[in-house]
Amino acid sequence: MSGVMNFKNCGSVLITGASRGLGLQIVDSLANGGFSPGKIIATTRHPAKKCSVSNLLNLDSGKKNKIFVSLLDVLNQESIEKSVEEVGQLVQEEGLNCLINNAGINLVADFHTVTAEQMIENFHTNAVAPLMITKAFLPLLKRAASRGGAGSEASMGIQRAAVINVTSLLGSVELNWGERAKNFKWYPYRTSKSALNMVSRCMAVDLEPDGILCMAIHPGWVRTDMGGSEAPLSPEESISSILSVIGGLTEKDHGSFLNFTGEVLPW
Amino acid sequence: MSGVMNFKNCGSVLITGASRGLGLQIVDSLANGGFSPGKIIATTRHPAKKCSVSNLLNLDSGKKNKIFVSLLDVLNQESIEKSVEEVGQLVQEEGLNCLINNAGINLVADFHTVTAEQMIENFHTNAVAPLMITKAFLPLLKRAASRGGAGSEASMGIQRAAVINVTSLLGSVELNWGERAKNFKWYPYRTSKSALNMVSRCMAVDLEPDGILCMAIHPGWVRTDMGGSEAPLSPEESISSILSVIGGLTEKDHGSFLNFTGEVLPW
Ligand SMILES: NC(=O)c1ccc[n+]([C@@H]2O[C@H](COP(=O)([O-])OP(=O)(O)OC[C@H]3O[C@@H](n4cnc5c(N)ncnc54)[C@H](OP(=O)(O)O)[C@@H]3O)[C@@H](O)[C@H]2O)c1
Ligand SMILES: NC(=O)c1ccc[n+]([C@@H]2O[C@H](COP(=O)([O-])OP(=O)(O)OC[C@H]3O[C@@H](n4cnc5c(N)ncnc54)[C@H](OP(=O)(O)O)[C@@H]3O)[C@@H](O)[C@H]2O)c1
Repeated sequence: MSGVMNFKNCGSVLITGASRGLGLQIVDSLANGGFSPGKIIATTRHPAKKCSVSNLLNLDSGKKNKIFVSLLDVLNQESIEKSVEEVGQLVQEEGLNCLINNAGINLVADFHTVTAEQMIENFHTNAVAPLMITKAFLPLLKRAASRGGAGSEASMGIQRAAVINVTSLLGSVELNWGERAKNFKWYPYRTSKSALNMVSRCMAVDLEPDGILCMAIHPGWVRTDMGGSEAPLSPEESISSILSVIGGLTEKDHGSFLNFTGEVLPW
Repeated sequence: MSGVMNFKNCGSVLITGASRGLGLQIVDSLANGGFSPGKIIATTRHPAKKCSVSNLLNLDSGKKNKIFVSLLDVLNQESIEKSVEEVGQLVQEEGLNCLINNAGINLVADFHTVTAEQMIENFHTNAVAPLMITKAFLPLLKRAASRGGAGSEASMGIQRAAVINVTSLLGSVELNWGERAKNFKWYPYRTSKSALNMVSRCMAVDLEPDGILCMAIHPGWVRTDMGGSEAPLSPEESISSILSVIGGLTEKDHGSFLNFTGEVLPW
């Protein structure tokens, strides 16, 4: 709860993969929650899907003009760079306070069916893209971090600058054992999320000197296109919990792997 | 020590990346150690480099004709399948007892220099290839495992069938923090080895019903082309220790991540 409130001290949040599922819910919850950030930048890879863009803009029900849409295909470097330019114009010298790497795919394949191509495609979207996006948005994140935020100079958190990587419990190598390992034998997905966890930890080490927080979060098992209808959590429930955790992040969470409930998960 | 002795109960060992470095040393130590396996299958991707093949064969100094060379480019599915056929002819109904996925590359790049292409290339060689190779050799591994080995039916180990993935301490997400994280900020390599650790753990789950042991091992920091001249260990020291650990593996080590000294490492 106290977490969600902290978005009022956050000037801008950018979300990848905001066309549907958890990304769309993040935009909705941030725009219509009690304590919105200054600017919500919803990104999607579909320039043609005007509907998805206007759906996103329509989420701004209070007509506060807080939602901005930027085209961003996470696999396309040119698209990433164009979005950085657009967002730079928008946030100006305030920079970008919070980057949420949410876009992801799950190419379902087990030991017998998996191909090298599936492994690489899932790895590219889920692990490499968050790295390339963070690198590209670094100047804007640095700008926000150097302003120090509402708190003390030394503090870390979304009032200053943060990179949030939406990972999965299925990326935990340790938990992939015993009873838990009997389901979801998804080689491309599990491998891509362990790889994302390493990317997240590497970036935490490198972003620390600039005061930029970096961590990985598991959203729970959620009813989206990816999660399916059997999942126990609604997108609202998952995102309300996640935003509360993200809003409350401090230096002690830097480089961590957290559950949507805020508990630490094993790598 | 007791570990090395166990190779006398191992009918065949296949090593990828045996042209130089640790792979070559494994062939040498196995061929010239006191307790050799029945057949040592050294694989290399260089058909043209006759020298490397004859160097390999020359390692069989006792003229025991234990070393066999098979061409295998770990990135090439056709090459993998050709090697499986060749090895199948060689081992016949005895099958393959031990597959050592050793071939690897390190595309050195830090946060600022790393490209998507480097991430993908390193991932392909270090994480995807061991998966595709294990899938391809599965019929031969199963054949060996079903014969039960020298011990009891239920036991696991190289006397029966085992897949050994040569990983790295740098693939440990947990250890990539604090003082340790200040060096070796190699995004493509670290990420590929965390991914390999997940692949190894996934395969352990799937190979268990067939009685095939699967684990990941860190060889230490070793003076090879990859390790460089500053490394504390000689190839002989690393491989003597590794072979001792591999020789002594039992069900309790199934799905593990071990140091060359035999200790458990965190994921
Ligand atoms: N749902 C769960 O139970 C669950 C559990 C653990 C982790 N997660 C993670 O949570 C995140 C969101 O998942 P979700 O459940 O919302 O999945 P989803 O319903 O399948 O939505 C995926 C989103 O990612 C976008 N995306 C995929 N590739 C993209 C690309 N190249 N460029 C831009 N956007 C791209 C999709 O855009 P398009 O509409 O353009 O395809 C869509 O907006 C993912 O990282 C997922 O791995 C989900
Ligand atoms: N040395 C260390 O300190 C250290 C530490 C931790 C882990 N490791 C791991 O130990 C393993 C061996 O490393 P090393 O030190 O011996 O490295 P190295 O001296 O660079 O030798 C690498 C070997 O892999 C082979 N290889 C690479 N790509 C291949 C491909 N596509 N197909 C077939 N073979 C291929 C090379 O063959 P070519 O001769 O044809 O290029 C060579 O035989 C690697 O997995 C490495 O990551 C090493």
